[in-house]
Amino acid sequence: MPIDVLGDAAFGPHRFRDPALLAQALTHRSAGTPHNERLEFLGDALLGLFAAEALYVCWPKADEGVLTRARAELVRESSLATLARGFELGARLTLGPGEMKSGGHRRDSILSDALEAVVGAIYLDAGFEACRDVVRPWFGPLIEALHPAKVGKDAKTRLQEWLQARQAPLPQYELAWEGGEDHAKAFRVRCTLSQPPLSAEGEGGSRRAAEQQAAEAVLAQLDA
Amino acid sequence: MPIDVLGDAAFGPHRFRDPALLAQALTHRSAGTPHNERLEFLGDALLGLFAAEALYVCWPKADEGVLTRARAELVRESSLATLARGFELGARLTLGPGEMKSGGHRRDSILSDALEAVVGAIYLDAGFEACRDVVRPWFGPLIEALHPAKVGKDAKTRLQEWLQARQAPLPQYELAWEGGEDHAKAFRVRCTLSQPPLSAEGEGGSRRAAEQQAAEAVLAQLDA
Repeated sequence: MPIDVLGDAAFGPHRFRDPALLAQALTHRSAGTPHNERLEFLGDALLGLFAAEALYVCWPKADEGVLTRARAELVRESSLATLARGFELGARLTLGPGEMKSGGHRRDSILSDALEAVVGAIYLDAGFEACRDVVRPWFGPLIEALHPAKVGKDAKTRLQEWLQARQAPLPQYELAWEGGEDHAKAFRVRCTLSQPPLSAEGEGGSRRAAEQQAAEAVLAQLDA
Repeated sequence: MPIDVLGDAAFGPHRFRDPALLAQALTHRSAGTPHNERLEFLGDALLGLFAAEALYVCWPKADEGVLTRARAELVRESSLATLARGFELGARLTLGPGEMKSGGHRRDSILSDALEAVVGAIYLDAGFEACRDVVRPWFGPLIEALHPAKVGKDAKTRLQEWLQARQAPLPQYELAWEGGEDHAKAFRVRCTLSQPPLSAEGEGGSRRAAEQQAAEAVLAQLDA
């Protein structure tokens, strides 16, 4: 599904009415204005929604925690960069001379940002349904390839593994609040890291559930 | 714009074709299944997109950093809980007996989650355009109320201005740690002030992002 920006300005099944939008989406900020950062902001939100909807439909039994972790996998920078390479987006980018020399067209962050920007551009060019028709097929193979162990693993385990891989100290969990009736207790737990120094709280119907939520919130801050 | 779930199942301008979807959206997990967590997952992504689009349109000159910070303000838990209170959502929630007694219908997290779930339910009930028509008006007043100084400037700039206004020396940023794989680098930066004498660390996927986090953490210590 190559992007023909030189000829008919088609992106996959989408043909741009306004080719200037596509050109902007493929222009890195190093090449001057108008560049793709605002379109990237819009496209990031669109991709988040399309990924969420694809998972909601494909995994009718999955709970929110699994869906949230799976969504993060689908839209993570390296996943989007891989898609962008499949579309040979790198060769079509407009970069400043410095970025060009240093191989910016191969960098994950630049490719992923440009793909997000293209999605934003399609939305502005042709609306929600057209944009979804282009993007949704991207996620089918990615969802099939999701490793169940990765999305299935609980948050405390994943946080522990992330920290151990970086030889950082293990997190501390402490009860911040406890309430509710005996048969329907509620707990709030704070999870604190010393390195990197950050913390977050989680709530749940058991102390263990609250710890998982807190670990999940810390992982979100780590973008892990 | 009250939600009438007892009578005609209308949510603001939206009238549910499938009232069971609305009932599910208003059911907290403490009350059993089907509860609203999966709908909340979907609604969270929708609200993220609607907030992004509203900002993109309202602030045509704002750069990505400003838009991103503003979006976080619009969809933060306390903002959504305030909206939910305006719709008197608390009185319409189905909660388990424990949550009911402990005042769960007044808790920010439960209200915000339920509002997200209602948005997901409208989307499934009537599609994208109908859902956007309901949600977009919510953000107008919120965007007007956003404090430009809060979202308008990045943390390093705000810290620098705070110090200059007090004729204090500029902060020092130094790399404290660097790690991660090539495709997923992590940086930790320490920001140090000589006057007042304090410091804080920040982390991010780039050195610049880590510096911003560190400046943000110092600003928090200064209560600025």
